[in-house]
Amino acid sequence: MPQAHSFSLYMERYRQQLDRQLDSVLPSDSQVSPLLMEAMRYSVFNGGKRVRPVLAYAACEAVGGHSHQATPAACAVELMHAYSLVHDDLPAMDDDDLRRGKPTCHKAYDEATAILVGDALQSLAFEVLSNDSLYPASIEAKTRLQLVSTLSQASGLSGMAGGQAMDQLSTGIKLDQAGLELMHFHKTGALIRASVRMGALCHYEVTEQQLEQLDHYAKAIGLAFQVQDDILDVTADTKTLGKTQGADIALDKPTYVSLMGLNQAKALASELHTTAIHALEGFTESAKPLRQLADFIIQRNY
Amino acid sequence: MPQAHSFSLYMERYRQQLDRQLDSVLPSDSQVSPLLMEAMRYSVFNGGKRVRPVLAYAACEAVGGHSHQATPAACAVELMHAYSLVHDDLPAMDDDDLRRGKPTCHKAYDEATAILVGDALQSLAFEVLSNDSLYPASIEAKTRLQLVSTLSQASGLSGMAGGQAMDQLSTGIKLDQAGLELMHFHKTGALIRASVRMGALCHYEVTEQQLEQLDHYAKAIGLAFQVQDDILDVTADTKTLGKTQGADIALDKPTYVSLMGLNQAKALASELHTTAIHALEGFTESAKPLRQLADFIIQRNY
Repeated sequence: MPQAHSFSLYMERYRQQLDRQLDSVLPSDSQVSPLLMEAMRYSVFNGGKRVRPVLAYAACEAVGGHSHQATPAACAVELMHAYSLVHDDLPAMDDDDLRRGKPTCHKAYDEATAILVGDALQSLAFEVLSNDSLYPASIEAKTRLQLVSTLSQASGLSGMAGGQAMDQLSTGIKLDQAGLELMHFHKTGALIRASVRMGALCHYEVTEQQLEQLDHYAKAIGLAFQVQDDILDVTADTKTLGKTQGADIALDKPTYVSLMGLNQAKALASELHTTAIHALEGFTESAKPLRQLADFIIQRNY
Repeated sequence: MPQAHSFSLYMERYRQQLDRQLDSVLPSDSQVSPLLMEAMRYSVFNGGKRVRPVLAYAACEAVGGHSHQATPAACAVELMHAYSLVHDDLPAMDDDDLRRGKPTCHKAYDEATAILVGDALQSLAFEVLSNDSLYPASIEAKTRLQLVSTLSQASGLSGMAGGQAMDQLSTGIKLDQAGLELMHFHKTGALIRASVRMGALCHYEVTEQQLEQLDHYAKAIGLAFQVQDDILDVTADTKTLGKTQGADIALDKPTYVSLMGLNQAKALASELHTTAIHALEGFTESAKPLRQLADFIIQRNY
């Protein structure tokens, strides 16, 4: 399909744009700890899908901006995501040996290094957001502070870290659909919503109405992303997935599939996709990448 | 001595001011993870000396401001410090059971919770710095971004996390004085410098000349603080210290005392104290608390 083809080109172009930016914001020389620096780079350049930064770029375009305006937002959300993966994989957390087909950070290095990699990547995300040289002059200091505020709120107790804490305690406990939704809404949803909001905020002409519609879109795809993850945990093989197939089931973690069965989970993913597309009503052709991202999220097989 | 007496009153007043502020910025209700919230509070309200926030308050006063202007800076540096202690104590790092006479976070809760407490406290530090309602109107958005920039740089690879990585690798390795200084300059010095700078930045009338002098002061007391820590590790008992006496020696970590002997280490602390006091030449009576803090840092016995 030519449309799918042009979308993969779009993803590829933005992945490359992001990787160049990440390469320039990640330190390439360290007098203090070359090992920590190397481990930070190892954890960021690991073949990730880069869904969150692409969402930031696409949201900026959807409100009439150019993707390069969203550079600080795109880098910051990916650094934050990378930190969370390194910490989630730790022995005291999910104890994962493989991430995207490669040894996880604490396997490739050691546990102390992995803890510090996560800590330093989080600091770097905020360093990027406060770095003048990454911003086009059109983005006011007030807006930059809004980016810091959005990202920090999405990452702490009332966001990603809180969701991860809920996840750690949910092992072996039967959560109902509302409980599972609350967990994912924080654990993965918060950063996905922040990515979309931050990308849009990077264009000075964005309106409150647009931010609200985009938030509805982001909530729906955030949840769809997780439902699809749960589906892939049982349907994809370890090689395609880049992580151990069936890992969540093995840990007796509640998933959408364990809760409602595979068919119902697929129906829910499809329903959330429809909600996401409807949320973008009134947006022009410039929101096409966001629409295609919604398609990608529930059609992906990795 | 009446002077020492008035200084302890000063410290006590600012500790109380800080604790009230921290109490209001730390969440007191969480739908997502009440346990994580409780563990965050446990780790912040642990009888700490609050040296870093008091430095921020005192630096703000030294340049002619009022301490309340430095509230966001004071809270943020203490949250950052609290996160670093929780992660440093983890089994994969220093593996400490006691902190200020109480069980460390991973002992009182568990390892996963302690990792998440550190992560969420770091996010909260930046949330505080980007929260409009904590600032007096006189502090411009541009200055607030400078606070974010200063704190993030002081915390990442080129600051605290880098220093901690260097420390982890230094166990059993003979560092010379330059190596030890490089490590401490990052591990503890970076956040102390940031505390002073951030406090001063919170007053709109601060000059570049003042910031530079204050940085000389902060560098000297940052190092003095560490030298005194090493002295206390061998001279104070576990009860006064609130942590295991002789812990660094037992881990075969390089310290100023192991490197140069107790008397030389004491002479170095005294020399750094003189440097710090000289750096404040030209500052008026308003810098008295900063001068007294320098005294406190090398005279403390805990």
